[in-house]
Amino acid sequence: MPEHAAASRLCFSGLCFLLQILNILLFAVFVRYSSDSSSDHCPPQRNCSRRNQDLQHPRFQDVHSQVLLSFGLLVAFFGRYGLGSAAISILIIAFAIQWAVLTQGFLNFFLNGKIFVGAQSMVSADFCTAAVLISMGAVLGRMNPVQTLLLALLEVILCTFNEYILLSLMGVRDSGRSLTVHTFGAYFGLMVSRLLYQPHKDKRKREEWQDMGPQPDVFAVVGTIYLWIFWPSVTSASTAHGNAENWAVLNTYFTLVASTVATFILSPVLYEEGTPRMVLIQDATLAGMAVMGMAGEMLVTPFGALIAGFLAGLISLLGLRFFTPVLYSRLKIHDACGVHNNHGLPGILGSLLGTLLTLLATADTYGDRLELVFPLVAEGSRTVTDQAFVQLGALPLTLLLAMLGGCFTG
Amino acid sequence: MPEHAAASRLCFSGLCFLLQILNILLFAVFVRYSSDSSSDHCPPQRNCSRRNQDLQHPRFQDVHSQVLLSFGLLVAFFGRYGLGSAAISILIIAFAIQWAVLTQGFLNFFLNGKIFVGAQSMVSADFCTAAVLISMGAVLGRMNPVQTLLLALLEVILCTFNEYILLSLMGVRDSGRSLTVHTFGAYFGLMVSRLLYQPHKDKRKREEWQDMGPQPDVFAVVGTIYLWIFWPSVTSASTAHGNAENWAVLNTYFTLVASTVATFILSPVLYEEGTPRMVLIQDATLAGMAVMGMAGEMLVTPFGALIAGFLAGLISLLGLRFFTPVLYSRLKIHDACGVHNNHGLPGILGSLLGTLLTLLATADTYGDRLELVFPLVAEGSRTVTDQAFVQLGALPLTLLLAMLGGCFTG
Amino acid sequence: MPEHAAASRLCFSGLCFLLQILNILLFAVFVRYSSDSSSDHCPPQRNCSRRNQDLQHPRFQDVHSQVLLSFGLLVAFFGRYGLGSAAISILIIAFAIQWAVLTQGFLNFFLNGKIFVGAQSMVSADFCTAAVLISMGAVLGRMNPVQTLLLALLEVILCTFNEYILLSLMGVRDSGRSLTVHTFGAYFGLMVSRLLYQPHKDKRKREEWQDMGPQPDVFAVVGTIYLWIFWPSVTSASTAHGNAENWAVLNTYFTLVASTVATFILSPVLYEEGTPRMVLIQDATLAGMAVMGMAGEMLVTPFGALIAGFLAGLISLLGLRFFTPVLYSRLKIHDACGVHNNHGLPGILGSLLGTLLTLLATADTYGDRLELVFPLVAEGSRTVTDQAFVQLGALPLTLLLAMLGGCFTG
Repeated sequence: MPEHAAASRLCFSGLCFLLQILNILLFAVFVRYSSDSSSDHCPPQRNCSRRNQDLQHPRFQDVHSQVLLSFGLLVAFFGRYGLGSAAISILIIAFAIQWAVLTQGFLNFFLNGKIFVGAQSMVSADFCTAAVLISMGAVLGRMNPVQTLLLALLEVILCTFNEYILLSLMGVRDSGRSLTVHTFGAYFGLMVSRLLYQPHKDKRKREEWQDMGPQPDVFAVVGTIYLWIFWPSVTSASTAHGNAENWAVLNTYFTLVASTVATFILSPVLYEEGTPRMVLIQDATLAGMAVMGMAGEMLVTPFGALIAGFLAGLISLLGLRFFTPVLYSRLKIHDACGVHNNHGLPGILGSLLGTLLTLLATADTYGDRLELVFPLVAEGSRTVTDQAFVQLGALPLTLLLAMLGGCFTG
Repeated sequence: MPEHAAASRLCFSGLCFLLQILNILLFAVFVRYSSDSSSDHCPPQRNCSRRNQDLQHPRFQDVHSQVLLSFGLLVAFFGRYGLGSAAISILIIAFAIQWAVLTQGFLNFFLNGKIFVGAQSMVSADFCTAAVLISMGAVLGRMNPVQTLLLALLEVILCTFNEYILLSLMGVRDSGRSLTVHTFGAYFGLMVSRLLYQPHKDKRKREEWQDMGPQPDVFAVVGTIYLWIFWPSVTSASTAHGNAENWAVLNTYFTLVASTVATFILSPVLYEEGTPRMVLIQDATLAGMAVMGMAGEMLVTPFGALIAGFLAGLISLLGLRFFTPVLYSRLKIHDACGVHNNHGLPGILGSLLGTLLTLLATADTYGDRLELVFPLVAEGSRTVTDQAFVQLGALPLTLLLAMLGGCFTG
Repeated sequence: MPEHAAASRLCFSGLCFLLQILNILLFAVFVRYSSDSSSDHCPPQRNCSRRNQDLQHPRFQDVHSQVLLSFGLLVAFFGRYGLGSAAISILIIAFAIQWAVLTQGFLNFFLNGKIFVGAQSMVSADFCTAAVLISMGAVLGRMNPVQTLLLALLEVILCTFNEYILLSLMGVRDSGRSLTVHTFGAYFGLMVSRLLYQPHKDKRKREEWQDMGPQPDVFAVVGTIYLWIFWPSVTSASTAHGNAENWAVLNTYFTLVASTVATFILSPVLYEEGTPRMVLIQDATLAGMAVMGMAGEMLVTPFGALIAGFLAGLISLLGLRFFTPVLYSRLKIHDACGVHNNHGLPGILGSLLGTLLTLLATADTYGDRLELVFPLVAEGSRTVTDQAFVQLGALPLTLLLAMLGGCFTG
């Protein structure tokens, strides 16, 4: 047995080494920094040339805040299962960022045989890493490091592919990535979890976890505060800048506030405790984030954000109470970190809300922001109804891709 | 007894539900985002039209950093009493932000039957939430959740009222809110604490706490670092922008530095330990913040900041050693988190310092900053002496309002 | 014995008091805020006048992020030895910042008998404080508070002197301070540690520490996340602004990623564990930072950053495994926090890399950035080879000064 362990250890080390050498070689051959001054390097479908020149400084801030995203999720995991998986999660982050820069570069920033990376590529790569972390949340504790690394390898490719179809080809607006990160990551992870299902082993593990009783709340408190502090700027990082960004931040705060209060309302009814456990509050915070992903820059009234957050908080808690057991007993899916309630369902809700808001968008309510939020509509090449249809169509497409991808990977 | 507990749980849940529905309805009827492009929506007494256009980007940063304020206080509480009250504190933050946006909106941003919210409203609402948290610090552990929620409800109204009188009607300069947040919050909480006084229960609780001995220092360390990192930008968030902001940040750093050293000087004299406990260092940090609230943007020499911080550190520590026991035994006020030493006394010191500095302000030392710091003086509609008198007069007014409000709420 | 303890306590308190009064007096006599509007106060060798006017806002951000530097190191220490030394470290930070503002002011910003401080001075002072903290890391647990305070007093002077020679007189480019902070701090601390060597006492302590077994990972996880989040912006804080800053941030991220993966590759080979302990990951993160200090703004290709990070990660781990025991048994240097592996060696590697990159710098690859990164070369007053020679020469000079200073202090 020790020999076997040593072999698997060296195998893991070797795989890391191989992948890292591969990354370095691919970087050496293909990747160059995009010099922002010569903006003609920029692929036309992203119309980044104009934004590069106008908004250079904000985009530097973006990278800074963006990398917080993955770590926010990481800290949120600690809230549920302690620090056991910290080391392997950090490895996955480190690997997935490099790999995502490469795969996204081939699809989006490839020009003259070189990939030109800049602030924008780091932001996209980090969104992709977040999707991988969400999927990992669903299968936490049931995969060995080598499997996890391979999952990251495949999911980054599929996630990039999904993002490319939705954002570049279909022109879907999804600035906070309700669909491409939260929903995709959640359902991908759930499918993998389904295929990894091993009745006896799972049951035993599950009981072990439930025996542990309420986890210490320290991490949940830290996670909640971290999300409150850093996430609003993350959600708004890739929105159209200017006024829209400001509104996205305020919308996110109002959503957070409402989903937190919703937890306090529902928790005493569902559970026997006077005040809810911190983990539930953290769940509600995550759900509030996911629901604001697509709609964050589209909402034009604060009370809309309050209602959306309120619903997200209720859904997250009701899902945890009633849906997770069903998921486990009927569909044989074990959802370790509750990603279905915190990312999957709120992501779907968010994209439906986004569709509704797109339908309601008129030049009157948006003013100059129309051009920023829906450039295609403002140009006249698409009607509002078309845009709403596209937004709606992106949802089943994402679900399909996530599930097929999950099956394949599993 | 369990029936009673269940009833009180549902009562709490119902109250939350009622208040949240009320908030959503009021938001739906009154609150709209202020579109920054049409700056004529802006009430004249805030002359925000000019600032909106010039300083749009900084103000987005403001919101971001501002919401850290409440959480900073929250983390500081953990330093004293652990995580027991984390959940309820987060509920209070979530509720008070909504409620403060509404009440402040009615007084400051009300126009044509609508409240126009923007970055500025979030900043003000968060200052108000901070005052509520400070008051909660004084009565921590002796109120049930329903009482706490009602305290927040009333205090937000009174705090907004006080702020409106001071800042809008009297034209007091209080950028870091020494008076309207620190002093008001501390004395409001102390009065409530006085009226909640129950000799036997308190004594028992107090002994329990003292039996616990030195709390684990982890939270105090985290709290201190958090305050050092984030607070200087909070203090300067609502200062006149441009040069004054920069000076406010530097002044705050120098104050922090000096108050920390003061703790190291006094602590070995007062206590038997070689190095002070981390909780004392955190207290000194908080006191340094409170003293710089009003004077932060007025100080024109670094050594002034060093002296102010030194005094604040000494006051905080001497207050804890000699004044808190007197407060408890004579005035029957139990000050759970030491808010009197960390917020009340340094707030008063800060406002006296602000008055002194206003008296000394001349066009020579301030240069172009005079217009930013004292717009009324620069316009010539008020002399420096008048302004100093107004600043001084704001102190007893705030104390009076805080005490009356505390009595009423208690 | 208690009498002795009381005396030493009062002695420590008195020393703090004396130093603080001295600081306040010196500040009162010499230090004034530099009013940014009259930029002729600015000493010519820093050509800050132009930068003041162009880049006022970014520099405010700099101060904010800069002060995170020391705290990042502080948090990293907790990862190794828990919170025992937290209070004294915070005192050292508070004292060293004041003292560094003074000493650096006398050398760099002295004009007409006054020191004009601004954002730039705070940034420099904080770099100096970071060097003191690195040195403290080497001698942690073996000095009493008074000795530590005196060490800070002397090291700040020497560090400022070294920085003045390198940056102002020789025109070395060292934006992230590979040399003046990481290498200087590490070797200074190691020399002091050598001279404090007491065979019996050390051995006992060392065994005690090793008996403690693996430290709880919480602090290492928090430290790692803190470094990932905040450090990239610290490294780029004092680079030439504009494009160069952006590249420095991206380079730092890529370095971090590669050094983390390197830990995962080497750790299973060197140790018996499947996944590396978090402390090792944190060490790799620190090493990645140190190596990017000088080269961060010079690298023009992402794969260079990946390779540098990979090497830094390997060096840090190999150093810990093979070099630290040699250091201890042969050279009688006890390196408590592994500063030699995390700061010393990677700092040297970074400065060699910087020299190599300077040699390779041509106007073609740098474009307009040449003027920002190597102003002297762009002006034509120096060739690239000269600049590379100067960069190389700075390394032994720093080592010499650090070692002599360490001897003298010890």
